[in-house]
Amino acid sequence: MSNTSSDTAARTVAAYAATSADRPLAATTIERRALGPHDVRIDIAYCGICHSDIHTARSEWGPAPYPVVPGHEIAGIVAAVGAEVTRFKVAERVGVGCLVDSCRECASCLAGEEQYCERGSVGTYAARGRDGELTQGGYSTEIVVDENFVCSIPEGIGLDVAAPLLCAGITLFSPLRHWNAGPGKRVAVIGLGGLGHMGVKLAHAMGAEVTVLSQSLKKMEDGLRLGADHYYATGDPETIRALRNSFDLILNTVSANIDISKYLGLLAIDGTLVELGLPENPIDVKAGALLRNRRSFAGSMIGGLAQTQEMLDFCAEHGVGSEVEVISAEQINDAYDRVVASDVRYRFVIDMATLGGESEGRS
Amino acid sequence: MSNTSSDTAARTVAAYAATSADRPLAATTIERRALGPHDVRIDIAYCGICHSDIHTARSEWGPAPYPVVPGHEIAGIVAAVGAEVTRFKVAERVGVGCLVDSCRECASCLAGEEQYCERGSVGTYAARGRDGELTQGGYSTEIVVDENFVCSIPEGIGLDVAAPLLCAGITLFSPLRHWNAGPGKRVAVIGLGGLGHMGVKLAHAMGAEVTVLSQSLKKMEDGLRLGADHYYATGDPETIRALRNSFDLILNTVSANIDISKYLGLLAIDGTLVELGLPENPIDVKAGALLRNRRSFAGSMIGGLAQTQEMLDFCAEHGVGSEVEVISAEQINDAYDRVVASDVRYRFVIDMATLGGESEGRS
Repeated sequence: MSNTSSDTAARTVAAYAATSADRPLAATTIERRALGPHDVRIDIAYCGICHSDIHTARSEWGPAPYPVVPGHEIAGIVAAVGAEVTRFKVAERVGVGCLVDSCRECASCLAGEEQYCERGSVGTYAARGRDGELTQGGYSTEIVVDENFVCSIPEGIGLDVAAPLLCAGITLFSPLRHWNAGPGKRVAVIGLGGLGHMGVKLAHAMGAEVTVLSQSLKKMEDGLRLGADHYYATGDPETIRALRNSFDLILNTVSANIDISKYLGLLAIDGTLVELGLPENPIDVKAGALLRNRRSFAGSMIGGLAQTQEMLDFCAEHGVGSEVEVISAEQINDAYDRVVASDVRYRFVIDMATLGGESEGRS
Repeated sequence: MSNTSSDTAARTVAAYAATSADRPLAATTIERRALGPHDVRIDIAYCGICHSDIHTARSEWGPAPYPVVPGHEIAGIVAAVGAEVTRFKVAERVGVGCLVDSCRECASCLAGEEQYCERGSVGTYAARGRDGELTQGGYSTEIVVDENFVCSIPEGIGLDVAAPLLCAGITLFSPLRHWNAGPGKRVAVIGLGGLGHMGVKLAHAMGAEVTVLSQSLKKMEDGLRLGADHYYATGDPETIRALRNSFDLILNTVSANIDISKYLGLLAIDGTLVELGLPENPIDVKAGALLRNRRSFAGSMIGGLAQTQEMLDFCAEHGVGSEVEVISAEQINDAYDRVVASDVRYRFVIDMATLGGESEGRS
C-alpha cells in the first residue's frame, strides 16, 4: 500500500489547548508535521487525563509554552506511515505515551531506558523536539510520532481502557518489575487513584500479595475487587504499628507531601519504597527509618519503550486495563477539577470522536 | 585446658565511665558477670573511640543510663572460655563490635543480619541485656561476651588497627558488599573521617574506582594515599555539575545534615546513595532527584556477625587496617573534643594497658 501525497503532507487538526495558566482549555486547531520517513500518523481514538496534564496546563511546574495541547496517554489507529516505517501498518492499533523522542545514543537510550536519556528525552507535549518545534499532545484528533516511540496495542484491550496504560500503567509496571514484584512478595500501594488502581491490578496480576494503604476505607470495596488482598486506613496509629516491617515493596502514588518516614517503617529488611510523584516540597526522611532494616527510598519515572510494549502485552495477556470514565472533549475542564478533587474512579479518558472538526491536509 | 573457679567467677575490672551528660569520663570499676557456658572473657588490648560513644556519653541520643562505659570497637585476647564454648580458645585474638546479643530466632537473626533483629539486638553498652542487666562497653580491661558475638581477628592485623574495624570497618564493608562494589563500579565516599577513610580503603581493596567527596582538599594527599582514585571539594558548584550522573554507589559518612539531593544528582542510572549516620534533623529529599535515573537513597547499619568475620578476614588478606592514633585512657576526654572537631586522622584507639588497675576475681 503506497501513500498518497495527502497522506504524508502536514495537516491542520482539531485539538483542545490551554492558552494560559488560569483560563479553561478550549477547542482549537494545531498543525501536525508532514510525515517523515520514520513517522507514523495516528488517528487518536482516546486520550487519558493525567495529573501531569493539569500541572503543565496550569503552569504549576513552571511556565508552560502556551498554547499547550496536553495528553500523553494516547490510543488510536495508524492512519499513514512514512516511507521507511517497518514496525507498523495502516489500521493497526497503537499507543503513544510520555515520550516521542530521545537522543538514542547515550547509555540510557542504548539500554532501552529512554526515559532517563542523559541528554533529556522529548516529552509528548510542551517540550522542544529535536527539530526545534514544540511538541503537542494527545487532546487532538491526530498525532505524528516516530515509529520508535509508538507501541502496539494488542487485540483484546479496548482502546479506551488501554489509553491510561501508556502513562499510569507503565509508571506502576516498571517499578513492580524492577523491584521484582511477584509470588511471595508483599507489595503495598499508597493511594488508590489513577496510578494506584493500576498498581493494584498489575501487582495482583504478577502474583504478589497486594495491600492498599489509603487515607480512609471509602474505596475499600473497589480496592478488593481490583485485586488487593488487604486494605488499610493509614490514619490510625495502631494500624501503622501493626504493619511495621511487613512489606517488601511500597509504591507511593500520592503526589502530595505525606509522612514518608512513617511508611518507610513498614518496610521489611531490604525493602524499598518507591516515589512515583513529584510533591511540591522536599520530602522529610528520618535517617533512622532508612538505617533500620537497610531500607531504600527510591524513585521511578514511567518506563522505556521496550518495557512499555512488554507492559501492554502483559496487560492483554492478563486482561488488565484501566478503570475509566469516558468523557467528551467539552468535559475536559470539569474533569480537571474532579481530578484535583480526587473525584474520579479511576481515570478520565477523552473520546476524540467528540472533538469534532474534520482534519484536513494542507497543500 | 580446664578453667579454674577464678577463671569463671564474676570480676571487678577497671573501666572509664561517663557519669552524666556534662561531666568528663573518669576511671572507675565495674563488674563483669561470671562466665556462662557459652561466654568468652576477653582481656581488652585496644578499644576505638566511635562518635556514637560520644553521643551516648553526652545523652545526645536520649538520656543515657549512667554510669555508661562506652566502647564497641574492641580487640583483645581470650582470657577464659565457658564450659561449652567451641569457637574460641584461650590466647586467641578476638574482637567485639556493636552487638553482644540478639533474639537469635527472628528472620533477620536467622539470616545472619543480627543488627536488624526484629526484637531489637543488644548493644555492647548502654543497653539492657536479655539477662536484664545493663551492658557496659570496651573502655575497660576486660569484657565477657557470648561466643556467638565474638569474632576472630586473623594474624597479620595489629590489634590496635583492628579495633576500629569492628564498627567503622563493618559499617562501610557491609554496604560496599551489599551494593556490589568491585571492579567497574564507581564508588564515592562523602567525608574522609573515621568511617570515610575505611570506605576508601575497603572500596579500593575490592577493586572499585574510588572518589572522595570532601568539603575541602585539605586531606587530599591522605585520601589518594589510602586508595582514592579521585578527590574533589564539594563546595564548588562547577565540580558538582561536572560529576552529575557519574557514580554507581555513594556512601555518606557525614552525620551532619548535608544537602542530600545535591549528592543524589551525582548518581548514574540505578545508583544508590547510602546513609550511614544519624543526623539530628530529618533529611530533605527532592523527589525529582530520586525519579531521575531511578535513584535510591538507602540506609545501612553496621553488619551481621558472619559478615563482620568476613570483613576481618578480607582485611587481613588485603592488608587493610584503620589509621589510628593510639592514646592512653586519661586522654579520652581530650580525644572526644578532638573527634567532635574532626581533628583526628583517622581513629582514636585507647591502649587499655594504660587504664591500669589490677582486675580481680570476686569470690
